[in-house]
Amino acid sequence: MRELRSIWWSKGSVVIIDQRLLPRKLKYLRIRTAREMARAIKDMAIRGAPAIGVAAAMGLALTAYRCRARSREAFLERLKRSAEILRATRPTAVNLFWAIERVMGVAERSETVEEIRRNVVNEALRMAEEDVETNKELGRNGAKLIKDGDRILTHCNAGALATVGYGTALGVIRAAVEQGKDVMVYACETRPRLQGARLTVWELMRDGIKVKLITDNMAAFLMQRGEVDEVIVGADRIIAKTGHVINKIGTLSHAIAAKFYNIPFYVAAPFSSIDFEHSLNEVVIEERDPREVLYIGGERIAPRGAGVWNPAFDITPPELVSGIITERGVYRPEELRGLGSGVGGRGG
Amino acid sequence: MRELRSIWWSKGSVVIIDQRLLPRKLKYLRIRTAREMARAIKDMAIRGAPAIGVAAAMGLALTAYRCRARSREAFLERLKRSAEILRATRPTAVNLFWAIERVMGVAERSETVEEIRRNVVNEALRMAEEDVETNKELGRNGAKLIKDGDRILTHCNAGALATVGYGTALGVIRAAVEQGKDVMVYACETRPRLQGARLTVWELMRDGIKVKLITDNMAAFLMQRGEVDEVIVGADRIIAKTGHVINKIGTLSHAIAAKFYNIPFYVAAPFSSIDFEHSLNEVVIEERDPREVLYIGGERIAPRGAGVWNPAFDITPPELVSGIITERGVYRPEELRGLGSGVGGRGG
Repeated sequence: MRELRSIWWSKGSVVIIDQRLLPRKLKYLRIRTAREMARAIKDMAIRGAPAIGVAAAMGLALTAYRCRARSREAFLERLKRSAEILRATRPTAVNLFWAIERVMGVAERSETVEEIRRNVVNEALRMAEEDVETNKELGRNGAKLIKDGDRILTHCNAGALATVGYGTALGVIRAAVEQGKDVMVYACETRPRLQGARLTVWELMRDGIKVKLITDNMAAFLMQRGEVDEVIVGADRIIAKTGHVINKIGTLSHAIAAKFYNIPFYVAAPFSSIDFEHSLNEVVIEERDPREVLYIGGERIAPRGAGVWNPAFDITPPELVSGIITERGVYRPEELRGLGSGVGGRGG
Repeated sequence: MRELRSIWWSKGSVVIIDQRLLPRKLKYLRIRTAREMARAIKDMAIRGAPAIGVAAAMGLALTAYRCRARSREAFLERLKRSAEILRATRPTAVNLFWAIERVMGVAERSETVEEIRRNVVNEALRMAEEDVETNKELGRNGAKLIKDGDRILTHCNAGALATVGYGTALGVIRAAVEQGKDVMVYACETRPRLQGARLTVWELMRDGIKVKLITDNMAAFLMQRGEVDEVIVGADRIIAKTGHVINKIGTLSHAIAAKFYNIPFYVAAPFSSIDFEHSLNEVVIEERDPREVLYIGGERIAPRGAGVWNPAFDITPPELVSGIITERGVYRPEELRGLGSGVGGRGG
């Protein structure tokens, strides 16, 4: 079967899988402008930290491809405006800002309008290819931690759909399967947006990897019964200074339970998800529309007027993290700060 | 406002609120036979350990009320058949078995057909009234643990709807409010059946008690932020020998997180929920239909053919429980065994 991709460049536009409709419909969206891309990111038609990084880069590529400005200044101005719009979509995943900076750096180092256009488009395409390569390396590094017969719990979707392809947490699982290890996955449904139920289960079934769906609140009970060998999740941002992991809401709960039951808890993420610059208190944890909790599909599940708190992410402290699996190797959270800044970009 | 009741006797039949339709419809179901009552319990039109205990007693009362058998033996035989049907509905909550035993004891101690009929019906009605009184005592005992301004996290629905009236965990909260304490409640939605979102939020809003809805996987993050002063949940069965608490799936996860953040974790339950007889390994943890996880309302949320694990309850070990709030006082889990068996029934 063809490898699953969440996003690609196609004849001057970008095609993404509309992840809001999975698993019931596999529908592609054609994106023609940075503004349309910003809308797709904000509404989570495309989601997952690495995927939205590349999506933002491709959004800039769309602007570069279509822009008719003749002067270098006007062209850069248009790109900056697109960058602003893309930056304002979602505040937490660091890949978004990393990707925009990387592409804008390339633009600013280009001399003519034609060069800017070509370099920006090429950089975005390169980042998409790099993403898949990075995930395969990361997957190979992580697969060493997986034993034959392991039962792996994961949260949300850190798969091909959360990246350009192959996935981070699910990339580790794919690599283990490719090495011939017999593994099975417990996918937590991941309320409120149900990325685990809708995307992870779909993606793993598509690849013939054994998966069982549970609600988020069953994970601790599964661990208590000795049925989880390790937990592997992705990350939206890892704070290098302190080793805190910001990831989909619900991650912290699994990390605490894993600690309580002495189960290894791994985070799989590319270097582009590591924030070498900011401290934890500088990060905005996105709070989303209460209707994500109040409605499932068209169905209202709570009384009209009910108050809701809906943070999209939570913060897992370093003492709960057994290892951070990256394309360069597996690190303890406290080792990240030693890797210094300036290595955050891959080739950027 | 009239005190909320989940079940009552009305002119030879029983009326219950159909809890499957809340919060969108407040509809009453009229139950005429033990078999209809068994169906209502199994399908969770009525749920909550104390409520299904009384529902089973009322189911037997319906049989007694309607039975036309003329001999004592035939009459008792009919009651035993009803008891079997009611017993087979749900395996985990101990109140169900406690209530059936208590009513059958009364029947067997009665001499004539007329006496059996009268005593069985009266015993069921008495148990319903006792339930509310018990919860009010339990509430007063628990309210002493609540401080003015406390923010209380609860799971599932351990309210008026889970009992005949007033509630256990929510009874403690009601009692604190009646004492003039300003409290607010975080209600966890409680996947898969959403009793928190549907019932607890509805019940508390109805009584004007401040409540905010969160998904189950947000609880740990809320605790990390210092926004939870205590957790109070109900119980479906407490194992007196070892102090283990069996309650709605998701309870364990909150208990582990509360321990990690040093937040008191209380269980509020009447003595009828305490099992003085069995050990933990003798208890059946009910596993329910996978469709409860796969569908929300009419909407399928995961791919066709997805494998699912759907336990209805989990087990919280005694070391995670700060106190068990009962109508006789607040106990540490390890104190229960000292209370001995034979005190399990209230007046039974």
